[in-house]
Amino acid sequence: MIKIGIVGASGYSGSELLRFLVNHPGELQVALCTSETYAGQCIESVLPNLRGFLSAKFEPLDLDSLKERVDAVVLAVPHKVAMSFAPKILKQGLRVVDFSADYRLEDAETYQAWYHTEHTSSELMPQAIYGLPERYRAKIRDAQLVANPGCYPTSAILAAMPLVAQGVVELDSIIVDSKSGISGAGPKPSENTHYANRESNVVAYNIGVHRHTPEIEQELGAVASEPIRVTFTPHLVPMTRGILSTVYMRLTEEMSTQEALSIYAGFYENEPFVRVLPSDTYPETKAVLGSNYCDVGLEVDTRTRRIIAMAAIDNLGKGAAGAVVQNLNLMFGFNETDGLKVPGMMP
Amino acid sequence: MIKIGIVGASGYSGSELLRFLVNHPGELQVALCTSETYAGQCIESVLPNLRGFLSAKFEPLDLDSLKERVDAVVLAVPHKVAMSFAPKILKQGLRVVDFSADYRLEDAETYQAWYHTEHTSSELMPQAIYGLPERYRAKIRDAQLVANPGCYPTSAILAAMPLVAQGVVELDSIIVDSKSGISGAGPKPSENTHYANRESNVVAYNIGVHRHTPEIEQELGAVASEPIRVTFTPHLVPMTRGILSTVYMRLTEEMSTQEALSIYAGFYENEPFVRVLPSDTYPETKAVLGSNYCDVGLEVDTRTRRIIAMAAIDNLGKGAAGAVVQNLNLMFGFNETDGLKVPGMMP
Amino acid sequence: MIKIGIVGASGYSGSELLRFLVNHPGELQVALCTSETYAGQCIESVLPNLRGFLSAKFEPLDLDSLKERVDAVVLAVPHKVAMSFAPKILKQGLRVVDFSADYRLEDAETYQAWYHTEHTSSELMPQAIYGLPERYRAKIRDAQLVANPGCYPTSAILAAMPLVAQGVVELDSIIVDSKSGISGAGPKPSENTHYANRESNVVAYNIGVHRHTPEIEQELGAVASEPIRVTFTPHLVPMTRGILSTVYMRLTEEMSTQEALSIYAGFYENEPFVRVLPSDTYPETKAVLGSNYCDVGLEVDTRTRRIIAMAAIDNLGKGAAGAVVQNLNLMFGFNETDGLKVPGMMP
Amino acid sequence: MIKIGIVGASGYSGSELLRFLVNHPGELQVALCTSETYAGQCIESVLPNLRGFLSAKFEPLDLDSLKERVDAVVLAVPHKVAMSFAPKILKQGLRVVDFSADYRLEDAETYQAWYHTEHTSSELMPQAIYGLPERYRAKIRDAQLVANPGCYPTSAILAAMPLVAQGVVELDSIIVDSKSGISGAGPKPSENTHYANRESNVVAYNIGVHRHTPEIEQELGAVASEPIRVTFTPHLVPMTRGILSTVYMRLTEEMSTQEALSIYAGFYENEPFVRVLPSDTYPETKAVLGSNYCDVGLEVDTRTRRIIAMAAIDNLGKGAAGAVVQNLNLMFGFNETDGLKVPGMMP
Repeated sequence: MIKIGIVGASGYSGSELLRFLVNHPGELQVALCTSETYAGQCIESVLPNLRGFLSAKFEPLDLDSLKERVDAVVLAVPHKVAMSFAPKILKQGLRVVDFSADYRLEDAETYQAWYHTEHTSSELMPQAIYGLPERYRAKIRDAQLVANPGCYPTSAILAAMPLVAQGVVELDSIIVDSKSGISGAGPKPSENTHYANRESNVVAYNIGVHRHTPEIEQELGAVASEPIRVTFTPHLVPMTRGILSTVYMRLTEEMSTQEALSIYAGFYENEPFVRVLPSDTYPETKAVLGSNYCDVGLEVDTRTRRIIAMAAIDNLGKGAAGAVVQNLNLMFGFNETDGLKVPGMMP
Repeated sequence: MIKIGIVGASGYSGSELLRFLVNHPGELQVALCTSETYAGQCIESVLPNLRGFLSAKFEPLDLDSLKERVDAVVLAVPHKVAMSFAPKILKQGLRVVDFSADYRLEDAETYQAWYHTEHTSSELMPQAIYGLPERYRAKIRDAQLVANPGCYPTSAILAAMPLVAQGVVELDSIIVDSKSGISGAGPKPSENTHYANRESNVVAYNIGVHRHTPEIEQELGAVASEPIRVTFTPHLVPMTRGILSTVYMRLTEEMSTQEALSIYAGFYENEPFVRVLPSDTYPETKAVLGSNYCDVGLEVDTRTRRIIAMAAIDNLGKGAAGAVVQNLNLMFGFNETDGLKVPGMMP
Repeated sequence: MIKIGIVGASGYSGSELLRFLVNHPGELQVALCTSETYAGQCIESVLPNLRGFLSAKFEPLDLDSLKERVDAVVLAVPHKVAMSFAPKILKQGLRVVDFSADYRLEDAETYQAWYHTEHTSSELMPQAIYGLPERYRAKIRDAQLVANPGCYPTSAILAAMPLVAQGVVELDSIIVDSKSGISGAGPKPSENTHYANRESNVVAYNIGVHRHTPEIEQELGAVASEPIRVTFTPHLVPMTRGILSTVYMRLTEEMSTQEALSIYAGFYENEPFVRVLPSDTYPETKAVLGSNYCDVGLEVDTRTRRIIAMAAIDNLGKGAAGAVVQNLNLMFGFNETDGLKVPGMMP
Repeated sequence: MIKIGIVGASGYSGSELLRFLVNHPGELQVALCTSETYAGQCIESVLPNLRGFLSAKFEPLDLDSLKERVDAVVLAVPHKVAMSFAPKILKQGLRVVDFSADYRLEDAETYQAWYHTEHTSSELMPQAIYGLPERYRAKIRDAQLVANPGCYPTSAILAAMPLVAQGVVELDSIIVDSKSGISGAGPKPSENTHYANRESNVVAYNIGVHRHTPEIEQELGAVASEPIRVTFTPHLVPMTRGILSTVYMRLTEEMSTQEALSIYAGFYENEPFVRVLPSDTYPETKAVLGSNYCDVGLEVDTRTRRIIAMAAIDNLGKGAAGAVVQNLNLMFGFNETDGLKVPGMMP
């Protein structure tokens, strides 16, 4: 029995992880849920969808005693906080999956440039594995520290990777235009998440400075074996969950939609959670709602020699908690799909 | 292995049933999906959330050969159609669960008065069991023909039943004001389900003539052991799934909210899918989204000696497909909760 | 030229009032907008829809100098704050329209019982006129202090008043079930207005204790010439604007829907902003979106001898800012409809 | 008094035009509304927001008698239908504004290539004026036939035009990623506009083949004085109204956001309905909801030397009916802003 502790379990990533794990068929148990805000309160009174599933309470975090309670820790806390906890947890011999951005980048300077804060445990960066199984499956199995990917990067990388790997895109041509549901901003009320501000409204934000940019560049650059710069523009659209990333890339050679789809189908042939859609079918966020699936589709615009590749995920599913489950499954020898073979919710 | 055939599997009730059944842990298999509209097409191309889960195609219905393919049939077709199929299926010795209204009422005259059509197999009405496990669990186990309850009645009956059973409400005082998501109207496009007509809009419909009225009256009347008339007003609110029914009843005696809650808690003590909420907590539809749960809460308004009891369900979950799974579990000896212990999706 | 000052102009009621007033055709001018939060900032940078309409800035409130700037003051501040400002403004000889609840009730004890706070200027209560032109048109013309009605009461009173006036309803039978958009909760972010909490969600709140209850009771009681108690249950539904109130009343005599509609049509014959809908047509909130209209419709349920009367308003329009404009028009001798003959926005 | 006839007045473009025109302050009158579907029915029973504004009925179209009824005709019918009506109307000496695409393109071959139908009145194409006042104001004043721009092109052209005119963008680098509300698909129910299919869903459509593409290319090409090809990807997002177009362009020279904004501010200095937003402020669709405004904002991503320019419009306002009013004002000598100085509706 693998005992999991979730630090910061009352946020959206943490609570979604709970929603997945209560149905995990393996020898895996949520043994500890901490919450600064709700310590002492019943989980099910804070998360009413889980009423009847969990009788435990949120606890305050006691970093030093984690080893007595759990085998692995999922950090569902903001960046900066995560890197203040992770070293101490790893020292106890516990394995860690980190929802935050603190260990996703390989390079402390890049981190500092985008996050405007010093990286206080950069010595751990080299050993952290970027938790995208579609790229680092083998390394994740053995990792002590897994950095769970950002939601936008997951969608952007999965949409672009096959063609970049194939070497048929102009590397300075990549533009990622993402449309996201509001839950990405978390459970804390703000002007940005205020119902009346978001309903019937679409707006871009953080253009040119969104912190997921270097993550996309790092991973696509690694695939291409050379540095890449992308233009990334996130938008908020009026829905709670879901990201659709539309990725524009200029092709270095002529290619039909069908040929491009073949490349994608081959690339993702053995992936349990990436579904390459047939031609004339584009990903829609609702088809993956609440699930760990990523739907990928594309069209080649021969007039402009561009490919428009799209990926749809649930930002809290494959973009966050679903990916953590997938990573935990790999790390602890479960079937990779345990607890995750759940279809999206339509209609 | 119990083989299930779903007739009319491409509609919302049928497809939601598929969504539940692909995760059923028992010896239960969907062996046949028919669809008039999509016969010959791959299920997963019609229902993109199920991509990767089902490789079969929708088939045309061949009533006479059902016995060779399946052990039980779920009818997910409109009323009138259901009663033209059910007798032939039962004759083959197959057990039937019917999503439609055709066998919910005990009385052919009442059916005719509300549905404005002749009941063509009224001889089956006496043997049909109303598929509300919270009331007819034992009978469902042995039933050949189960009439799955309507979505509104499920919420209204579960909200009102404990107090009516207790004999403490004025029976002519019951008013059911329901707020429903749009999916109750089914997948067929219409003015009523047109996005721009429903977004930012609330409207009542079918006041005084909604066909779920006699169903509520029949079941609450049976609980009270005398005829009951209720005022029922359904409303459409801008969301896809979910029903909140607010039930107003005048009490025959003074009672505190806490006392009323105790009656409810006792009444539903052993029910796996009815959750009675603590005081000061009211049901919200999102807490049961995509699930088979019904959340019930209440408040006594001592100034007017009325109780306001509320029930929240997913109209496609506990209000349709979830209930069918629960009924199939009972009929075929599975654990009643098999495939249904799935929390609602929040946020 | 009548110069208007709006105190608290950056909230939803205040900003909606600005939206109406920039198109007022009469000799009426917004001469001062105060805001505690945004004092010193350009109005159009805070309210981007008004960009290009107003070059002024929000100012801090200087109660003592109001007389030098304006002829009338609209108080768009919370209750308790309003009653701390109103006496000082009236003393300067300025006329006041108050958005808050502080002067709506005739009785300080009732106020105290529902608002749990002392009324500090109860001496003004007798002279305050309840700003519902459909009932107090003549008095509003001459009023120094107009208490703008609450959004829920406006809808409930307009839905119930004609029949109560006719004396054909059992006075203890009135139940008001209201469905409201989220903007009623104002612009301040909170858990209650958090996008992810409200989207795809319906929930009741403040059952039995909502502060609009005594306002409904006072006004319908005045119409009936005897005290009335109503059961009032407000609900939040996923939209920004709009209230639909469904009012249940038991009739003292048999009456057809058509007869009831005739009573309503007669009652509202000369009202410019109450539209009585024909039979088989029910009010929908979208038809009045952004407008000062109230659509009223009804159905008699002869089986239970109840009438179900419904009213739809925009809570920020006829339920707040539109009503203020209507009141200002009456108070200052403009055409009652000036600036208000704007259709709702459909689709 | 200018008498206007609207052919096809019950659709979204036509009904929105009515909503604008009931408040037009000039000597302009809607003298005729035709509708194939609703001929003989009261306008206000079909369009409930207009109840109380229009007592007329929809009439069948009698092409030959138009001259006796009106001075100008607005065609609010689909393409193909428009070009079958326009010649006959023009022959009667009436001026025409056409909502459809039939006269937007200068070149019949291009039309045929994108619309897959023969152009049956290509002789009128040279005289038709593209109804974008920001570019063709003077010509519109004298035009007999005005082709009202498409909603997507309006947003894309207004977002890109200043920089293209300045000659500082790589002309083969232009990508338009648009997010649109559902009302663009019109009032006819379909799978695409079905509530449950669109709620909580984002999806691209018509990639590489959307018919608004040649319109964008024609107009930006004219500005650049050389042919341009753009990649255009429209998306549906869950809201009724509004388009946000995000336009990506590679700069030929280094430029700061502030410098780019200066170019835009200068370019649109005298435009009454284009609002250039200050730096760090991006257009949001809600700020222009229901209005004729287009909000434009931008950011230069110096890392990739791209400019991201955005325009927000209401697809039924500046993207359709608002533009028609603006064009009618120009054609008939009214103030260009008559009936259009209406702020967007927030919240």
